Amino acid sequence: MEGVDHLDHERRKAQFDVEAMKIVWAGSKHNLEVSDRMARLVASDPVFEKDNRQRIDRKELFNNTLRKAAHAWKRINELRLTEEEASKLRQFVDEPSYVDLHWGMFVPVIKAQGTDEQHKKWLTLAYKMQIIGCYAQTELGHGSNVQGLETTATFDPKSDEFVIHSPTLTSNKWWPGGLGKASTHAVVFARLITDGRDYGVHGFIVQLRSLEDHLPLPGITVGDIGTKFGNGAYNSMDNGVLRFDHVHIPRDQMLMGLSQVTKEGKYLKSDVPRQLAYGTMVYVRQAIVSDASLALSRATCIAVRYSAVRRQFGSHDGGPESQVLDYTTQQSRLFPLLASAYAFRFVGDWLNWLYMDVNRRLQANEFSTLPEVHACTAGLKSLTTSVTADGIEECRKLCGGHGYLCSSGLPELFAVYVPACTYEGDNIVLLLQVARFLVKTVSQLGSGKQPTGTTAYMGKVEHLTQCTCDVQKAADWLRPSTILEAFEARALRMAVTAAKNISMVSNPEEGFFCTLC
Amino acid sequence: MEGVDHLDHERRKAQFDVEAMKIVWAGSKHNLEVSDRMARLVASDPVFEKDNRQRIDRKELFNNTLRKAAHAWKRINELRLTEEEASKLRQFVDEPSYVDLHWGMFVPVIKAQGTDEQHKKWLTLAYKMQIIGCYAQTELGHGSNVQGLETTATFDPKSDEFVIHSPTLTSNKWWPGGLGKASTHAVVFARLITDGRDYGVHGFIVQLRSLEDHLPLPGITVGDIGTKFGNGAYNSMDNGVLRFDHVHIPRDQMLMGLSQVTKEGKYLKSDVPRQLAYGTMVYVRQAIVSDASLALSRATCIAVRYSAVRRQFGSHDGGPESQVLDYTTQQSRLFPLLASAYAFRFVGDWLNWLYMDVNRRLQANEFSTLPEVHACTAGLKSLTTSVTADGIEECRKLCGGHGYLCSSGLPELFAVYVPACTYEGDNIVLLLQVARFLVKTVSQLGSGKQPTGTTAYMGKVEHLTQCTCDVQKAADWLRPSTILEAFEARALRMAVTAAKNISMVSNPEEGFFCTLC
Repeated sequence: MEGVDHLDHERRKAQFDVEAMKIVWAGSKHNLEVSDRMARLVASDPVFEKDNRQRIDRKELFNNTLRKAAHAWKRINELRLTEEEASKLRQFVDEPSYVDLHWGMFVPVIKAQGTDEQHKKWLTLAYKMQIIGCYAQTELGHGSNVQGLETTATFDPKSDEFVIHSPTLTSNKWWPGGLGKASTHAVVFARLITDGRDYGVHGFIVQLRSLEDHLPLPGITVGDIGTKFGNGAYNSMDNGVLRFDHVHIPRDQMLMGLSQVTKEGKYLKSDVPRQLAYGTMVYVRQAIVSDASLALSRATCIAVRYSAVRRQFGSHDGGPESQVLDYTTQQSRLFPLLASAYAFRFVGDWLNWLYMDVNRRLQANEFSTLPEVHACTAGLKSLTTSVTADGIEECRKLCGGHGYLCSSGLPELFAVYVPACTYEGDNIVLLLQVARFLVKTVSQLGSGKQPTGTTAYMGKVEHLTQCTCDVQKAADWLRPSTILEAFEARALRMAVTAAKNISMVSNPEEGFFCTLC
Repeated sequence: MEGVDHLDHERRKAQFDVEAMKIVWAGSKHNLEVSDRMARLVASDPVFEKDNRQRIDRKELFNNTLRKAAHAWKRINELRLTEEEASKLRQFVDEPSYVDLHWGMFVPVIKAQGTDEQHKKWLTLAYKMQIIGCYAQTELGHGSNVQGLETTATFDPKSDEFVIHSPTLTSNKWWPGGLGKASTHAVVFARLITDGRDYGVHGFIVQLRSLEDHLPLPGITVGDIGTKFGNGAYNSMDNGVLRFDHVHIPRDQMLMGLSQVTKEGKYLKSDVPRQLAYGTMVYVRQAIVSDASLALSRATCIAVRYSAVRRQFGSHDGGPESQVLDYTTQQSRLFPLLASAYAFRFVGDWLNWLYMDVNRRLQANEFSTLPEVHACTAGLKSLTTSVTADGIEECRKLCGGHGYLCSSGLPELFAVYVPACTYEGDNIVLLLQVARFLVKTVSQLGSGKQPTGTTAYMGKVEHLTQCTCDVQKAADWLRPSTILEAFEARALRMAVTAAKNISMVSNPEEGFFCTLC
């Protein structure tokens, strides 16, 4: 058996053009070229080595990550990489770090919610990484319910300053990535209190650490919240805790692109429609769905290759045993996951289109499609991340005992991926939002209000509740229209039944939870 | 919110006698007392501290484990603990180590398969830990299929020795716990070849390392196979790789309690029925089911407590938010797992009874119940370990973001638990064995052969395929007999349908895989 390359044999059997598929997967020939070039750049650079991740302790892991982030920054500048190239390079460095939050949350939130003046001052510093920022929203006692945040930002007209304060244990900021050790600044979300009134949660730029010696500034207690799941995984990230004891910041560090507080302490509500925030949400969820595809494709790739090489049972006359890939039990668990990786790849593209479509409509002050877009992105975020998290673990089990070794790559892939089921909307909370939207859509059928977008099929309610499947022979299942109608009929009938059950319960909220869960 | 003990409030609401339940859970007042005393002993001893497990590197973790194992041994001797107490103490030390394999596999296999003479020589050394043993069965290329093992033990009548050899890469022993660093000896499973014939897999006691300097003996290559899932978890265990280059051992180091090789190289088959081995299998699976209950009860305990303390959404007029324990979505995910932990606890007791029953029958040479016992233990091993592994991860998600921190205890509980789905029979392979047994049982219905044990209900085939549920009002579901009959009817009808479907396929083996998976 030694010396035989089983993968080569399998690869020769491909019945499609592998090079063409690579381009489809990458999105374009250009994307494939960039991806390939960045992959080689990272793989050939010893600073980016990651083989040792599982053996070293937390401190060494974190130091390595700092080194890699700085080196990536250096290479990006030396090679004058484009933003597209830089982003691919960071993807292949493949290690969560404070840089993700600096570029992925701190810079975008200032862009989205800051004034031109604030952009000029803060983004200039941030782009050169002369300051390092994080995004301090979640608190020890408050995650999904953002409106329940307790940190206060009380305006003091005498000093023209906000006083940022953590009034309780549960108000401690908890989880922000990059906060524990690296960040010099944060966008802090706090309840804006002025003129004796609570105006709800707003964003404030707060300096946390000295630019001289990196020590926390007076009134600020900050640190790392400890180890997380996995050997490496998110342990390279300094998720942090942050407590304020009456920290004063100038008034102009409130992000005032949307609403403002005047020198006199008067709160001016923004006239920008709040719906504009939806564009960002669609963008973030589109990225999460693409990431799901990436993670699941890595897991299935490992499990498919293993299944081709691994042989167990089924030896005849002392010949080699059967490849486990040939067992139906293995195929029935593995192939749907492989198919899902492709499906998620293409639905990610579609979500990218949806993002551009939504933006175009928002610019034209057209908000009618938003509820459907919201439900659709919530549902896809929840579905793809749940399937991917469970799918990685299933791939691990499909590799038998060997999947339990870090050298299989699967334990770390699982540990680094699972937070996606919780962040940016807990998957169960999101599914309930989808359910509420669907039940509402059902209740409006026949009212003349036509369902739109991905729920347009519900307009065919009469046909779909009556129709029977027209499949006569196995090959009929190869017609996409047949499969699509089967899905539509099933989805509609389930939604209608759920809506009926809920309507029979006296307390609708309770009915919701009982019927749907 | 600070200073309020939410758990105290919840605990006062218990509608059952908590002290009585503790005794039921422990099995007896005596068990509870021993368990409590050993828990305190471990908790109060700084050597057994485990808070630092996730922060230290692999080498330090392993050194700590060696220290703990030696200290446990010292305390067991100093305090003259009984075997029951020692076993509880090791359970609370709660860290996989080479000691588990020494006591759990090396000693029992010599007991079960050795001669009196071998017991006298090897068990005396092992009981005093003057030698440390492991169990070297699994190979790099051979896990589930034990009959496919490649390591050879060729008898050389001239020297009256066996020559142990690893002929291929895939024949390297791979996974044995305690092998990588600690063990001085192993029971090695190898193909017995004598007189030019292959007699299949047998056990041999092989010394691996010098008792003077602990270095590998000539011809032996041995080492650790690297890091595994989780920060701590099984990384405290030295799972190992072992390769033999024509290593000679005396003939009397073959375990000869069952079959023997004479000085002349003649193979003598044992007249002990092979079925006697089933007793051990039932014992091991009974222990795995009990462990499932322990692991799931720890996870649900953490998630229930968290759900009582955590509050999110539902605040009225600035009052506290709702405990997440009060959300039906949380309850519908958490409570079935809590119920399963209890169910597994009691089915573990029943398996213990089954073990004693089987042993009694084996002593009387009565083997008729074995197929049902085999299927039953295979099914329960697979079911309880799968539910527990998935349940721990579900409990982790039920703790939201906090479940991702190692301080929740859940990431390590998952990482240390999941191998149970793979070892001692891969769960999918075991389920196929159960399915085969059920289909065979169905095919024999009406032949006069009455199904026994847990499949006795299948004898009521006519009633169960005809009967309708007699539930009239919700309270009727509180009758255990009604629930039991519903399960029996469902299980029987599914088995009958599966058997029918399989009988329609030309290749029955293929039918099995297609129909059941």
